[in-house]
Amino acid sequence: MKKLNTSPISGTQELLPVPQASFNALKSKIENSFSLHGFLNIETPILERTEILFAKAGGDTEKQIYRVFKTTEDPTLSNEALRFDHTVPLARYVIEHESDLSFPLKVYQSGENFRGERAQKGRFREFYQCDIDVIGRNDLPIFYDADVISTLIDTYKHFELKTPIVARISNRKILKGILSGLNLEEKSKDIYSIIDHAEKVPAEKTDSALTEIGLSDENKAKILSFINLSGSKDSVLSGLKSLGVKNETMSSGIEELIYVLDALTANGQSDYFIADMKIVRGLDYYTGTVFEFAMPDFKDVGSIGGGGRYDNLAEYFTEQKFPGVGGSIGLNRLFSVLSEKNLLENSSARPVDYTIIPISENELTFSLKVARDLRLKGYSTTIITNNKKLGDKLNYASSTAKNAIIIGENEVKTSTYEIKPLTF
Amino acid sequence: MKKLNTSPISGTQELLPVPQASFNALKSKIENSFSLHGFLNIETPILERTEILFAKAGGDTEKQIYRVFKTTEDPTLSNEALRFDHTVPLARYVIEHESDLSFPLKVYQSGENFRGERAQKGRFREFYQCDIDVIGRNDLPIFYDADVISTLIDTYKHFELKTPIVARISNRKILKGILSGLNLEEKSKDIYSIIDHAEKVPAEKTDSALTEIGLSDENKAKILSFINLSGSKDSVLSGLKSLGVKNETMSSGIEELIYVLDALTANGQSDYFIADMKIVRGLDYYTGTVFEFAMPDFKDVGSIGGGGRYDNLAEYFTEQKFPGVGGSIGLNRLFSVLSEKNLLENSSARPVDYTIIPISENELTFSLKVARDLRLKGYSTTIITNNKKLGDKLNYASSTAKNAIIIGENEVKTSTYEIKPLTF
Repeated sequence: MKKLNTSPISGTQELLPVPQASFNALKSKIENSFSLHGFLNIETPILERTEILFAKAGGDTEKQIYRVFKTTEDPTLSNEALRFDHTVPLARYVIEHESDLSFPLKVYQSGENFRGERAQKGRFREFYQCDIDVIGRNDLPIFYDADVISTLIDTYKHFELKTPIVARISNRKILKGILSGLNLEEKSKDIYSIIDHAEKVPAEKTDSALTEIGLSDENKAKILSFINLSGSKDSVLSGLKSLGVKNETMSSGIEELIYVLDALTANGQSDYFIADMKIVRGLDYYTGTVFEFAMPDFKDVGSIGGGGRYDNLAEYFTEQKFPGVGGSIGLNRLFSVLSEKNLLENSSARPVDYTIIPISENELTFSLKVARDLRLKGYSTTIITNNKKLGDKLNYASSTAKNAIIIGENEVKTSTYEIKPLTF
Repeated sequence: MKKLNTSPISGTQELLPVPQASFNALKSKIENSFSLHGFLNIETPILERTEILFAKAGGDTEKQIYRVFKTTEDPTLSNEALRFDHTVPLARYVIEHESDLSFPLKVYQSGENFRGERAQKGRFREFYQCDIDVIGRNDLPIFYDADVISTLIDTYKHFELKTPIVARISNRKILKGILSGLNLEEKSKDIYSIIDHAEKVPAEKTDSALTEIGLSDENKAKILSFINLSGSKDSVLSGLKSLGVKNETMSSGIEELIYVLDALTANGQSDYFIADMKIVRGLDYYTGTVFEFAMPDFKDVGSIGGGGRYDNLAEYFTEQKFPGVGGSIGLNRLFSVLSEKNLLENSSARPVDYTIIPISENELTFSLKVARDLRLKGYSTTIITNNKKLGDKLNYASSTAKNAIIIGENEVKTSTYEIKPLTF
């Protein structure tokens, strides 16, 4: 027999049953929360036509796409591939099923995506993403930007983490307006990138990077104070005013930001967000509201989810306009971070409620009855029968169950039993 | 803009939100039932090493394996592929994590598998399988054969189908013993295949097929009466006796069959199974108990799930012995059959409980409060705001929600609201 490598492929997740139960609980909480907020689940296939994926992808993403072929086929003819995100399949879905859908379409997707990235800590090649999106036909009220962020706040609250979470919210029109006001439009790509990295590098480096791309001291000072605007609505708004820039794009961004923050406040969520101009989100894709979720007590973790508004979901597939706003949680990374920092409640809870141990085959019928009754009450229950000693059976039980029930002659005679809580 | 084909790839499933909710409900019922019966969830990656998958596959399966490569790579060097079932990854998992697992290991797996089959009705290339397995180390009591079937019976009951379901149960040792007793061992492969197809062809064809492979009239008569043994334990047992064959293999098969049927009876499930000698299951893999689930009122549907006992889960990877017993439900086919025959309860239930319609922005804060209260009570609730007319908003609401709540000035003033049930 050839000795085969039985470890899972690097960049994939494979858990033992107890952490798997904890992962599943996190996933269910997300899905239940999305559903509770009126998002409808849709699920597109993992297999997509290569031409659909390539229509939007480009650069690194295109290189990372996994294509598939059958052993009997010529791989160069492969025209099928694995989806790398939920957005491209959602765009295809909306075009394909448009006449059967009602807009604004509120949907959530929760499934696996694939990217051929170089494996490294925290980077997965096969990973779960949990996305919500609201798609309008032709237009979409700004209310839904608040709806998406509000839903995500409730979702993170639902985790009952042992640490606070906060939504950091901005609007890309504000920076766009400022850059236009300062005549820095042609440097905007560089500036977006510098702001996007500002938190990951020392302050001097951000400063010198802005000098390097040729900003005057005055403009640099404005961008640096812009970057540092973070906190309550009022403090950020007065900071923006003091930059001394004013134009329609900037005003429209500020107005949208105010709407979103006020709606979250009206919804009783004022403890869960800040306005934060450092948030730009790398993707060209976003055109208005942008946000990221963070755990302020764990700055090293960075973003644990984010999203924003985009003008046109399906621009690669159709002339029709479908504006949208969405947010995404990368589940595997989130789970590995929360596990590592021990932030999940009940992460080591054993998934079985009761393990029933009949002493011999004579007690099997009564044991089956007890199991049936417990299951009817909603308790996860299992029966163990083998030739091992009682001590071994109890050890087995305690590896996965919270309680044991031993059924012997006496229990059968009296139709009663004792529950023995199990400790590790 | 190039016009792209936006339909999903053939052989994959893509549903509108309402049927998707119905599909998800079926999937949840299965998973919850498995969990209630003490099966632990594990999830292996979809990506597997090609050498792992090829170790067991062979024949048609090998040809159907989807291999993957990155656009930038030489596909002929591809050593990664998509899993085609849950059994091979389970075997790898058991070997890899053996020292961290407790045996008998009761696990369920529920996820997507991939086979490059020619697309045809009811055949999926990307499909959900929901599997339960109990794996022993060195040995595994026959009790677990009953445990698996009993769990599946409860699972199908949980669907609340509008038609009965039945488990058809046999044991491969019985036929093996009979063939040995009749000195037909060298024809056993043919005979298994003829029995496996007996239900799909006219009786004359089964008869002539048995003649063609050279059976004497006497032996043919015995095999034909064997095939037709189906029903209660007693009737099948007396039928088996009247075949006039007796040996250890056959007796051991009969003994195991009796154990399984008696355990199901002890568990109050006697209305949900029959002994049925037509069940042999094609795979070489099975060595004892075999079973299939059927809907007797819909014979055209055939099997809606099945499984059995196997002596050695991981024979391709290790010298160690891991006997197991398992069962599998093909979810996409099951869902499409049940939908087509209209056998699912509430299959067209709209997934949102309440859609709240504020008349203007002035009613938004109160609407948010109402939504919050309803969600706290566990109701899926959404708010719609746009510039459309009330009638359009009500139409929108009725496409996904069971009820609408209209919030105007008066509702805000009085802090009350009316619930308007929506009909299609």
